[in-house]
Amino acid sequence: MRNTEDAVLNMALTPADTAVTDLGQTGCTSPKCSGAFVADEDGVLVGISRASLARQDAGPVFFEEAGPRQQLFFAPHKTKIAIVTCGGICPGINDVIRSIVMEAHHHYGVAATLGIRYGLRGFIPACRHDVVEFVPQNVAEIHEFGGTILGSSRGPQPVDDIVDAMERLGIGFCIFIGGVGTMRAASAIQAEIAGRELPIGVVCIPKTIDNDIHFVSRTFGFSTAVEQATEAIACAHVEAVGAPYGIGLVKLMGRQSGFIAAEASMGLKHVNMVLVPEEPFALAGPGGVLDVLDKRLRQRGHAVIVAAEGAGQHLVAATGRADPSGNPILGDFCGLLTSEIKKHFKEMSLPITQKSIDPSYIIRSVPANTADAVYCGFLGRLAVHAGMAGKTGLMIGSVNDRYVHVPLPLVTRERKHIDIASDYWQAVLDSTGQPRFAVYQA
Amino acid sequence: MRNTEDAVLNMALTPADTAVTDLGQTGCTSPKCSGAFVADEDGVLVGISRASLARQDAGPVFFEEAGPRQQLFFAPHKTKIAIVTCGGICPGINDVIRSIVMEAHHHYGVAATLGIRYGLRGFIPACRHDVVEFVPQNVAEIHEFGGTILGSSRGPQPVDDIVDAMERLGIGFCIFIGGVGTMRAASAIQAEIAGRELPIGVVCIPKTIDNDIHFVSRTFGFSTAVEQATEAIACAHVEAVGAPYGIGLVKLMGRQSGFIAAEASMGLKHVNMVLVPEEPFALAGPGGVLDVLDKRLRQRGHAVIVAAEGAGQHLVAATGRADPSGNPILGDFCGLLTSEIKKHFKEMSLPITQKSIDPSYIIRSVPANTADAVYCGFLGRLAVHAGMAGKTGLMIGSVNDRYVHVPLPLVTRERKHIDIASDYWQAVLDSTGQPRFAVYQA
Amino acid sequence: MRNTEDAVLNMALTPADTAVTDLGQTGCTSPKCSGAFVADEDGVLVGISRASLARQDAGPVFFEEAGPRQQLFFAPHKTKIAIVTCGGICPGINDVIRSIVMEAHHHYGVAATLGIRYGLRGFIPACRHDVVEFVPQNVAEIHEFGGTILGSSRGPQPVDDIVDAMERLGIGFCIFIGGVGTMRAASAIQAEIAGRELPIGVVCIPKTIDNDIHFVSRTFGFSTAVEQATEAIACAHVEAVGAPYGIGLVKLMGRQSGFIAAEASMGLKHVNMVLVPEEPFALAGPGGVLDVLDKRLRQRGHAVIVAAEGAGQHLVAATGRADPSGNPILGDFCGLLTSEIKKHFKEMSLPITQKSIDPSYIIRSVPANTADAVYCGFLGRLAVHAGMAGKTGLMIGSVNDRYVHVPLPLVTRERKHIDIASDYWQAVLDSTGQPRFAVYQA
Amino acid sequence: MRNTEDAVLNMALTPADTAVTDLGQTGCTSPKCSGAFVADEDGVLVGISRASLARQDAGPVFFEEAGPRQQLFFAPHKTKIAIVTCGGICPGINDVIRSIVMEAHHHYGVAATLGIRYGLRGFIPACRHDVVEFVPQNVAEIHEFGGTILGSSRGPQPVDDIVDAMERLGIGFCIFIGGVGTMRAASAIQAEIAGRELPIGVVCIPKTIDNDIHFVSRTFGFSTAVEQATEAIACAHVEAVGAPYGIGLVKLMGRQSGFIAAEASMGLKHVNMVLVPEEPFALAGPGGVLDVLDKRLRQRGHAVIVAAEGAGQHLVAATGRADPSGNPILGDFCGLLTSEIKKHFKEMSLPITQKSIDPSYIIRSVPANTADAVYCGFLGRLAVHAGMAGKTGLMIGSVNDRYVHVPLPLVTRERKHIDIASDYWQAVLDSTGQPRFAVYQA
Repeated sequence: MRNTEDAVLNMALTPADTAVTDLGQTGCTSPKCSGAFVADEDGVLVGISRASLARQDAGPVFFEEAGPRQQLFFAPHKTKIAIVTCGGICPGINDVIRSIVMEAHHHYGVAATLGIRYGLRGFIPACRHDVVEFVPQNVAEIHEFGGTILGSSRGPQPVDDIVDAMERLGIGFCIFIGGVGTMRAASAIQAEIAGRELPIGVVCIPKTIDNDIHFVSRTFGFSTAVEQATEAIACAHVEAVGAPYGIGLVKLMGRQSGFIAAEASMGLKHVNMVLVPEEPFALAGPGGVLDVLDKRLRQRGHAVIVAAEGAGQHLVAATGRADPSGNPILGDFCGLLTSEIKKHFKEMSLPITQKSIDPSYIIRSVPANTADAVYCGFLGRLAVHAGMAGKTGLMIGSVNDRYVHVPLPLVTRERKHIDIASDYWQAVLDSTGQPRFAVYQA
Repeated sequence: MRNTEDAVLNMALTPADTAVTDLGQTGCTSPKCSGAFVADEDGVLVGISRASLARQDAGPVFFEEAGPRQQLFFAPHKTKIAIVTCGGICPGINDVIRSIVMEAHHHYGVAATLGIRYGLRGFIPACRHDVVEFVPQNVAEIHEFGGTILGSSRGPQPVDDIVDAMERLGIGFCIFIGGVGTMRAASAIQAEIAGRELPIGVVCIPKTIDNDIHFVSRTFGFSTAVEQATEAIACAHVEAVGAPYGIGLVKLMGRQSGFIAAEASMGLKHVNMVLVPEEPFALAGPGGVLDVLDKRLRQRGHAVIVAAEGAGQHLVAATGRADPSGNPILGDFCGLLTSEIKKHFKEMSLPITQKSIDPSYIIRSVPANTADAVYCGFLGRLAVHAGMAGKTGLMIGSVNDRYVHVPLPLVTRERKHIDIASDYWQAVLDSTGQPRFAVYQA
Repeated sequence: MRNTEDAVLNMALTPADTAVTDLGQTGCTSPKCSGAFVADEDGVLVGISRASLARQDAGPVFFEEAGPRQQLFFAPHKTKIAIVTCGGICPGINDVIRSIVMEAHHHYGVAATLGIRYGLRGFIPACRHDVVEFVPQNVAEIHEFGGTILGSSRGPQPVDDIVDAMERLGIGFCIFIGGVGTMRAASAIQAEIAGRELPIGVVCIPKTIDNDIHFVSRTFGFSTAVEQATEAIACAHVEAVGAPYGIGLVKLMGRQSGFIAAEASMGLKHVNMVLVPEEPFALAGPGGVLDVLDKRLRQRGHAVIVAAEGAGQHLVAATGRADPSGNPILGDFCGLLTSEIKKHFKEMSLPITQKSIDPSYIIRSVPANTADAVYCGFLGRLAVHAGMAGKTGLMIGSVNDRYVHVPLPLVTRERKHIDIASDYWQAVLDSTGQPRFAVYQA
Repeated sequence: MRNTEDAVLNMALTPADTAVTDLGQTGCTSPKCSGAFVADEDGVLVGISRASLARQDAGPVFFEEAGPRQQLFFAPHKTKIAIVTCGGICPGINDVIRSIVMEAHHHYGVAATLGIRYGLRGFIPACRHDVVEFVPQNVAEIHEFGGTILGSSRGPQPVDDIVDAMERLGIGFCIFIGGVGTMRAASAIQAEIAGRELPIGVVCIPKTIDNDIHFVSRTFGFSTAVEQATEAIACAHVEAVGAPYGIGLVKLMGRQSGFIAAEASMGLKHVNMVLVPEEPFALAGPGGVLDVLDKRLRQRGHAVIVAAEGAGQHLVAATGRADPSGNPILGDFCGLLTSEIKKHFKEMSLPITQKSIDPSYIIRSVPANTADAVYCGFLGRLAVHAGMAGKTGLMIGSVNDRYVHVPLPLVTRERKHIDIASDYWQAVLDSTGQPRFAVYQA
């Protein structure tokens, strides 16, 4: 039995009882059919602290648990699945693609798995990108290579044209691998599909190296990216130690959320200061970044600073420009920091040596580590299960250590951020030894 | 307000309201004291599926959330903390030690952090192991090395002697880093302490490379071990490909639970068959392991088998012996498998080449990867927070993606196993392509 | 002008002046043809110390320098090249195969490059292994995988049958990738070819992970193997540190020569004792291995021993058996050492903990590191150049930092060993800190 | 007996026959003293091709072989050794330092080994850098970290002041770890020492990541740097594949010589074009870089370009400025290349995506790989042997696969370059598939 709140949370192409295929009755050849199916009713509670439970007047909120369903919406041997990868690359995309193809082929025996090339552009006839048809042999080794074998691109394309292409290709459901922007596009596509009353499903797999998506405890590729980032930090430390008053500055990804910078700083112990978008630190003045850096250099002779891409935006003028994905182009805080450091220590007559490292392309383009590879395998499988069951307008999320179906409108509302009042951020500070900086006053 | 069930779940040295130190009032110098404390009432719900919630007649069960408390039981500058590491090594122990020492020193400013050498033996005067006194400088780099700088040993020691030593050393609380056996010992020690009415705390950090402890989603070192195991599997694959009808057999840790074998097989795609203690497979006969291997070899010319240490124990005679930790010494299933394979293919006149790899010591002795390093940092910090607050008889667990205090009696009841009827095991089978083997009939 | 000695050193299918193709005249399309050819007369002096030069009464000995020749014996577009890989695997074989195929195709445009499967067995019709025809696309990525994609096998096959197969396949020249045993076989094959007066070339690329081939400063894969071996040693050190009186024993490849053990011990600084086949050490008695180990353990509490596979054979009974390659199966010295250590310390009442690691299959099956990859590229290219020029009965060697053609008879005379009276071995001792052990007296 | 040429080649503080210590007679406690000494007369022939030997009218040229001497100039227990590291960091410096300290202490038992901090500045009193006294315990683990624990700096310091400091510190000999600039400084220092008739030795260990020093087949750190560079190239390839008409541009070290770029391109097979300082390529026009890139992109859809730091300087205006070491600051060729590529494909209406990676700081700051670690061990040992024997004004070189003493004046004459008419460069072209570009016409 579902409560009202729940009814809103789950979308499917049709009620399950009209599903065309019941794996429990039709003698599916998959070894799966011995029957460990997940029922829609097996919801996963979202808020699990005592306070959360007490707070919810409308009753507890559950997400559907992800997993194979006994009743399928799509007849496998007549169904075509499409995959599209959008936005920046991150470790593990090819693992996800491989997993989708393998699950669709070996577990369900679908008619075809199609790859749309170079993001949403691949749906647009004028861009003249061929559609790839995947078979297991072609994808067997792709996980050993970073990036995406489908190619990717940024930016929206006309929703009409995309749905036209889906119809033309005869797609049963499409799996979108992308970030919040992609999921907004997927929502619009799903709305258009609903408007046309088409039996086409929209399933999303969250992809962002910044790990800033709600209802996803850790986006795929994040673990690999953090591991890779620590290598750059180690190098910055070596450079800092090797010169008198050496400063190593490492710029890491993180436009609005500093998770990579924070985790990498806890992963390697040589970071003395980490700057994230969530903290409105002052640069100058007592207790500001320069003051803390000055003390560190005089005491220890060298320092490592890690700055997330979007840190310190309160200190630089907005560029007013945006990239093709619509993300605002950030002000150059690391440039500002570098010149302010130079200015400060010139005034102080301390002969520093500063080296800056921006390892972004190296971090995001390596193959997935084992943890991410395993994780990507689940994401791909579960997206296929969701799609085959006729689920639509959802993202495969991970909440409270369970895989769940998250309705797209809940995902796209806002980004996930580091709570700088939390014990998590305190752990970061404990690791670097930095204080809570003085707050910037405009 | 706590329910009856909850009262059972949490132990502390004294009621919190008689705590000697209130960080919110005494002007602690820690930057933490701005106040992001965790309250005991912030419980974490254990069963979070809709079914679990419905099932609980006695009301929902909560664990205490781990984290810093505003009210301490111990006065930091008078308190000595002890650390002891027991049982086999696994990646990350030194990270945990480092984290404990750093948190105890920098965050609380405790009087001393002592290291007990070579496991519980270090408490026993006759063993003549000196106690180490840790300071931050000495542990700053230890996480770069695998194993445990304290040394370890297996097996119990007299509880009386251990508590005597704790009294003699003036220990406020002791952090035990060990497996289920260690936690049983810690329980007995805590009971003895309670019997003597001593104000000494017992806090455990779960350590087992097999990942088979309840209320711990993933034990530290497991991620590293799985990653390392995949390298051995890759080598077995290369060996198998390089010879006519080549078979690579990799034996991985997992006495009672096959998690490493299962995860590593999903992490690397070259495994064709994974054997775990949880599955009562038949070796001979149709649908048995040899039959499936035979088909694979004829089709593809090579095969990789991964066997957990404790797999196939239903097929070998029990040794009746036990190691110093009391773990039964397992029967030699890999030996049996090797000779049965040889016999089978000799009968079939298929000239196989078999190579066996046992990478156990290499897997367990590498330094922690970044994910484990970060995780170990939290475990160490949270153990110190729990101990300082006067919590006792508990393990730092991770349930539903939250760090919690788990009462020791709940931990030691039974091991965590792979549910071979679950979608998790199905994902393993989907990855290897192996069928559900025929079940062994005695 | 050549001296008498030189005439013996170089073999070719016919005098160069009757070569069918002159690249300088026929307008070859290769960018190479601008003309940086190597002339046969560009010999490389073998003995280069002042003493060597003085010693040579018969005049200095030169080897032909390897490299592209202006005059080819074979007309490229009519020529088929064969590749065969024999014996145990080692890192880089696929790099060599790839290089041969690429050079043969892109540089010379040969008619075909054939792969013989599973060693010399692939020539034998009764073994029913298909011959592979390589094209660039098929080998483009093979260097990313360890081992040999052709497969390998041990042991001889009838020379007649092999040459029959070469004739049947229409092979111009065959490149044998193998060790001293393979080169002996290649010599016999070349003699048979000469007896039949066939225009078929025999070119060898030396492959042995033991690095024990004369006129090859470092066999390919050796650098990778040593690097990989250090990881196992690091683990043995961690195991040794983690237990009271811990001893880590690592067995490394090296049947007759201890180069891997020696280099790995210099590469990682945790080795306290390295045992090689070249040193006739005593186990018992003053200054013997046990005595030195005893002192080390009492002083430092832990020790790491590295033993080459063939070390201590003077202390164990010969098995009298041989593997399919004809190599004698060695006596189990590491077993002896283990039991003698156990016995010794039991007598001494020192409670040691010993862990043994045999990483051989892991060491030899990883992909080549970058240095080996580059090196393998040269070996493959130069073998093709030599073959195309009609050179035969030779191995591509590296002498005095130059690539040369070494006549097979000079190679197979004896193995290369560590000179334990040299400064090289002294450097190993300086690294481990071990003394020169007392010499075993039978 | 030495020929005239030889007499010029070797310098020593005094004739060997007045050496104060004869290790063969005084009963040195080193295990070395069993006697595998190297004699000065054991020269190594420099030119070893037949042509070289024929060419030398003045007789063959030999270098002294490096190694331990029986007769020492310095009495070990009275001798202090100094170490200084100059210029940019590269992998392995700490391995060299460690080796020097260990050899000086354990093998010779010298009075002290001193570390001069931050390059030649460390000799200058006004810079106020303390001198470090090394003992084995302090350096035992330093090889696990990249860079130099001594710190480094660029640029000359007054020779007078340096020699004053050497006298003041009572240094027997100083080991300079640096590049050609440092060796020029060392020559001047040695001349000043000779002018003052001081018994102070000057021994150099060549250090340059560019591998551009004569009489050094491969500078230490080069192997590691090349390996590390391939990882950046792999990432550039992934980025290029992931976007429509993707171009990955990797800038590698190599101011005047393109060895890292060339080797890394042979080590990883994804490079399509490598640009080095030695080749005067045209950018525009038929057969120029843009033309070749255009064809590649249209055929394959993506491309990877590797450019050495100093490539294409014939196409950019000289900056006229120099860094503190006196090296001219290079014109920004990669900037030019990027803008010319953008311009070209805009004209061609091909929508490219270009990503640039500059991994220099990451490449040079990693710890040495095993091959470099072993190599660094020899360089350090041999420098100590040379210094103790009273050799001066020399560099430890490696010529024809032997370690030798190279007189400094021979080293500093000119840089080592890639010969683009050689088979080595042809091998690079064969690997990338690029043609010989049209030559730039000013």
